[in-house]
Amino acid sequence: MLQDVIRVDGRKPNELRPHSIEIYPLAFPPGSAIIQCGVTKVLCAASIQEGVPKFLEGTGQGWLTAEYSMLPASTQTRTPRESHTGRLQGRTQEIQRLIGRSLRAAVKLDQIGEITIIVDCDVLQADGGTRTASITGGYVATVLALRKIFPDTYRDLVSPVAAVSVGIVNGTPMLDLNYAEDSTADTDLNVVKNHLGDYIEIQATAERVSFSREELDAMLSLADKGIAELMESQSKVLSSLDLPE
Amino acid sequence: MLQDVIRVDGRKPNELRPHSIEIYPLAFPPGSAIIQCGVTKVLCAASIQEGVPKFLEGTGQGWLTAEYSMLPASTQTRTPRESHTGRLQGRTQEIQRLIGRSLRAAVKLDQIGEITIIVDCDVLQADGGTRTASITGGYVATVLALRKIFPDTYRDLVSPVAAVSVGIVNGTPMLDLNYAEDSTADTDLNVVKNHLGDYIEIQATAERVSFSREELDAMLSLADKGIAELMESQSKVLSSLDLPE
Amino acid sequence: MLQDVIRVDGRKPNELRPHSIEIYPLAFPPGSAIIQCGVTKVLCAASIQEGVPKFLEGTGQGWLTAEYSMLPASTQTRTPRESHTGRLQGRTQEIQRLIGRSLRAAVKLDQIGEITIIVDCDVLQADGGTRTASITGGYVATVLALRKIFPDTYRDLVSPVAAVSVGIVNGTPMLDLNYAEDSTADTDLNVVKNHLGDYIEIQATAERVSFSREELDAMLSLADKGIAELMESQSKVLSSLDLPE
Amino acid sequence: MLQDVIRVDGRKPNELRPHSIEIYPLAFPPGSAIIQCGVTKVLCAASIQEGVPKFLEGTGQGWLTAEYSMLPASTQTRTPRESHTGRLQGRTQEIQRLIGRSLRAAVKLDQIGEITIIVDCDVLQADGGTRTASITGGYVATVLALRKIFPDTYRDLVSPVAAVSVGIVNGTPMLDLNYAEDSTADTDLNVVKNHLGDYIEIQATAERVSFSREELDAMLSLADKGIAELMESQSKVLSSLDLPE
Amino acid sequence: MLQDVIRVDGRKPNELRPHSIEIYPLAFPPGSAIIQCGVTKVLCAASIQEGVPKFLEGTGQGWLTAEYSMLPASTQTRTPRESHTGRLQGRTQEIQRLIGRSLRAAVKLDQIGEITIIVDCDVLQADGGTRTASITGGYVATVLALRKIFPDTYRDLVSPVAAVSVGIVNGTPMLDLNYAEDSTADTDLNVVKNHLGDYIEIQATAERVSFSREELDAMLSLADKGIAELMESQSKVLSSLDLPE
Amino acid sequence: MLQDVIRVDGRKPNELRPHSIEIYPLAFPPGSAIIQCGVTKVLCAASIQEGVPKFLEGTGQGWLTAEYSMLPASTQTRTPRESHTGRLQGRTQEIQRLIGRSLRAAVKLDQIGEITIIVDCDVLQADGGTRTASITGGYVATVLALRKIFPDTYRDLVSPVAAVSVGIVNGTPMLDLNYAEDSTADTDLNVVKNHLGDYIEIQATAERVSFSREELDAMLSLADKGIAELMESQSKVLSSLDLPE
Repeated sequence: MLQDVIRVDGRKPNELRPHSIEIYPLAFPPGSAIIQCGVTKVLCAASIQEGVPKFLEGTGQGWLTAEYSMLPASTQTRTPRESHTGRLQGRTQEIQRLIGRSLRAAVKLDQIGEITIIVDCDVLQADGGTRTASITGGYVATVLALRKIFPDTYRDLVSPVAAVSVGIVNGTPMLDLNYAEDSTADTDLNVVKNHLGDYIEIQATAERVSFSREELDAMLSLADKGIAELMESQSKVLSSLDLPE
Repeated sequence: MLQDVIRVDGRKPNELRPHSIEIYPLAFPPGSAIIQCGVTKVLCAASIQEGVPKFLEGTGQGWLTAEYSMLPASTQTRTPRESHTGRLQGRTQEIQRLIGRSLRAAVKLDQIGEITIIVDCDVLQADGGTRTASITGGYVATVLALRKIFPDTYRDLVSPVAAVSVGIVNGTPMLDLNYAEDSTADTDLNVVKNHLGDYIEIQATAERVSFSREELDAMLSLADKGIAELMESQSKVLSSLDLPE
Repeated sequence: MLQDVIRVDGRKPNELRPHSIEIYPLAFPPGSAIIQCGVTKVLCAASIQEGVPKFLEGTGQGWLTAEYSMLPASTQTRTPRESHTGRLQGRTQEIQRLIGRSLRAAVKLDQIGEITIIVDCDVLQADGGTRTASITGGYVATVLALRKIFPDTYRDLVSPVAAVSVGIVNGTPMLDLNYAEDSTADTDLNVVKNHLGDYIEIQATAERVSFSREELDAMLSLADKGIAELMESQSKVLSSLDLPE
Repeated sequence: MLQDVIRVDGRKPNELRPHSIEIYPLAFPPGSAIIQCGVTKVLCAASIQEGVPKFLEGTGQGWLTAEYSMLPASTQTRTPRESHTGRLQGRTQEIQRLIGRSLRAAVKLDQIGEITIIVDCDVLQADGGTRTASITGGYVATVLALRKIFPDTYRDLVSPVAAVSVGIVNGTPMLDLNYAEDSTADTDLNVVKNHLGDYIEIQATAERVSFSREELDAMLSLADKGIAELMESQSKVLSSLDLPE
Repeated sequence: MLQDVIRVDGRKPNELRPHSIEIYPLAFPPGSAIIQCGVTKVLCAASIQEGVPKFLEGTGQGWLTAEYSMLPASTQTRTPRESHTGRLQGRTQEIQRLIGRSLRAAVKLDQIGEITIIVDCDVLQADGGTRTASITGGYVATVLALRKIFPDTYRDLVSPVAAVSVGIVNGTPMLDLNYAEDSTADTDLNVVKNHLGDYIEIQATAERVSFSREELDAMLSLADKGIAELMESQSKVLSSLDLPE
Repeated sequence: MLQDVIRVDGRKPNELRPHSIEIYPLAFPPGSAIIQCGVTKVLCAASIQEGVPKFLEGTGQGWLTAEYSMLPASTQTRTPRESHTGRLQGRTQEIQRLIGRSLRAAVKLDQIGEITIIVDCDVLQADGGTRTASITGGYVATVLALRKIFPDTYRDLVSPVAAVSVGIVNGTPMLDLNYAEDSTADTDLNVVKNHLGDYIEIQATAERVSFSREELDAMLSLADKGIAELMESQSKVLSSLDLPE
């Protein structure tokens, strides 16, 4: 059976990498978290600013936006700094737009007033799955930031969102790809879900081999399992502070 | 039943907008097509250049890349020109990366030698679905360009790829959203498929309301129907020139 | 006699290329036109925006500005997109400044209030004379846009402006150069005139061979003839809508 | 008669401003000159670099290019530095392209080998006519630079080029406009001629009032007179070094 | 006496903040260290690339360059990302040039062949003294990187370099300013020294109050003490790996 | 003795190059000066603008900022124009920040109201010491600009600031290095002082050989002598207009 396949790092196809979420790694921003999934490690910080983008001014609604960046030394071969080339790469923009959309789905923006939450996701180590880790960890940072300014009511202003990547490697659907798997995958799927089990985002790409409806279904089922486990970790770390998830 | 819902423009939920593909609208590039889907209208041109990006040099393989742009007057309110702001927007980069990946899946890049196909998708009128129209029309332009340099063998170098958007509007899954529907949709799904019925890309986004597995399935079924019809149109226009699809 | 010379495309030296102006090719902007001069084809769109540049604020005067761009596939060899290089070329800026100045001479800017007319000239096919075609076609788009907001009085707010190129090729002055002629011309002259027969702009350049006063005179006479014919076409297409020129 | 009009600075309509050309103001570049026309003052430097632009490599031909810039404090109100805004203005590009074309007409580029002459025109004081002064002074700097590397033959490698502005102010054609005249002129004409009396460039612009063929003729005649006098000054300063013009 | 002054955080004027250096915090780059000085925390990573800048090609010499960046959430109020503004600030460039010059003084560049060491200093928490911490921590990362490629000889290829800031606050010279002190300091001095006790860099700035020769001497003496202690920490952490300093 | 060393240009180690300051070389800005130190020649212009940067708005305080640029032909080999590369080099930013800080120390910014003084330092000839010459000459231009708007009280609004470079060349400390000396110097020190003999800035860099406390002292003493002489020249040129320094 497929479930008997053993992966490069010893995992079964339906296993997440060992993961952890550390809260408050940073002294200054109101919310921060480090999420580690295997070797991948992302520093997430949520800051709050007065005011909203132009299109929301006067509506009484808040906004959330995300920025994503890889530290140069986060990759096996050093990645040049985008501040030095003067241009954000397409990949970067795509990822930070995805993170922003996903986390906006977690916050009741119409109940926080005209403020902007900025979620910075800086990748310290990149070994696959950095964009989904950014979403899962960014959610925790966002909750902590809201707790800072709405200490009594923040529980009602957020609801969990988490994300995971899935792929088909050598014909086998696998959960939570690391970089080695990701670079040889036929298909790559990123899934973002909420606490109701509904989808926020699905992004499936087949640059090498196209995939069938059945394969899509198999991948979505793996994602269900992974996201449920990640949401449990979010819940645990937040409740450790007597914070409901 | 849902299928009884009548849409703003009189269509049923599972109907494509009237569409057409005109070939060779341009005098100079080896391949070109205008695709019109309702009011949306995209000019697709495929050019061929010697050489490939650095990472492919010496491999004997070819490459395909896409560029996407909206003419300033293509939208209801004029859109500023990205050449004037000096920066490509994230949305633009995201779209042209999607078009490029999709069309690369249509071409046997390892059999065309070290050339680069550049597919320019310039939106003349934007009324929703410009990225999927770019893929469907860009495929036709690509075939024509390959025909120019491989007149005898080009049939074996490509296989059809087409794309369509689907969404959930007021709770009803609908095929091929126009701009009015798109801006009020709960969920937006772009699907790219090949001639085998397999998926190349799925991008589903729920900025307003999350969607369930059932809703995803319903949307994917609508996409199946739409893409099949678009592929028939591709096939017809190409065969009109005695070109197999 | 010089007039016996036959040109590459069969024209006499004093003949324009076959030309046509199509109005309303675009659904959204208030004014639009496609002008075709031989193979050259330019899509002109005029949009209206509230407000004026800083130096005019509070004066009650309007403004008109133009933007010019060549589609990548408009040329025999693909031209890279300026939005991707991040910089407008000097040639582009020079041309759009010329178009702007010329069309400002066509509009009574002190009678339209503090609005800005933006004329977008996007070259679909480039075979010489794109900047003069942009002016001639841009005039038509401008009239249509003004008609939209001043349906009763727009006739009094504009007066015709048209432009043509002339050159000396192999010693012979010739009207309306195509690309092949333009690239071998000794001298290149662009002339913009108004309906009184007076000049708005004259730009003569001799990169290869200098030109004498007599040659200048001969070229200006050819321009007179060409511009008269183009103004007739402008008039005809506008009056077809019961629009005086 | 028109010639009786007295101008703001006491000149007759057909008089140049007092002007002078100083050679070798700079220690390092092979050729340099300061040209002063009334208050306008431009520092012109000609440098020589090995190599030519790509399109000339291997042809054995040389190239000449010009760069133009206004010092921030050269104008009555300080002008921001283009190096700080990060973009060359359209006006700057237009001017440096004009200077380059004009001076290329002065040099036998096919006889100097694959070198590039760079002519830097930095405006120290701007009181009208800076682009034409740049051409007239840039010619002198160019001759000096060629003299440095072709001490014996440089006389045969160049032939004079000079430029002047003319305009119609309050209905009167006037030679060599200063800034006050230029800003109220109906029409502005820049003329570049060579030593044979033929034209290299004519650029006439009527932003306020269109101009007739007769007015053009009157302006061209004024330009003839002005350019002849400027060429005499070029000749004198170059021959002072035992340099034929 | 001055030494009796007690600082905001309880230190004496001549005391460093508590500091520590952790090695190998990152999985991928050959050398990395986190240096913490009070609340200030900088992640330093040293990567190695084949090749050197143009001006060194063919000399057989190596090169070292540094890049410096503050994470957006490293400051009390979020700092916008330079990759998003598209321009490096002057302050950033100044700092990374300083770090580069200082660390080049630590490495025998003529004995490492044509490689480039890139030292990335990313500030995780900024509470004053980030540039000097970057130098002190960057030295450790550099040693570790050289150890990776020259495991036997790296000891002979480096010699210690460390840096500290000093300032005059309310008339009292103080060692190792934190942000609160730094923002009220009359004078700010950054000192970089080598293991011989000689200076690599001195940068003293008096934006508020000028300083006398005596004050300079007092500050330099404080710096001597601080740098000696920091070098001891460098030595200790490197020797913990059986690495001589 | 060291003082017996004779330098390339015949100077003793403790001698400045011959220098001069010319005032009002420019017609338009309120203050301007050309400072020449040996071959180095910098044009300094001080302009006044209404308003201050955001962080000072409403404080009633003024501001001073400096911009520095080298003309392309100011150097022995032509230097590319930063306006063309689109980016200010780190060196440029570092220098203009230094000039700005130094001159802010010369002006009582809290007594001039909310205006901004912009000091443009454009290097006409670069032979070492351009940044210190910019400060010394920029001071004179600043005084002249303040005199223009505060004709009666400007004497009380400024106090002298001057700067000089010192270095150690072949082991000998030398005052006011020219380019040849600067490029072979072991150490380079820039010193800015005020009229009280106190320091505004000290920047010492040892890219080649580190320097000792004794060498620093020797250099600072040379700087004292040089700055005193430069301040005398500032004073003389300003008093020639009946201006106290």
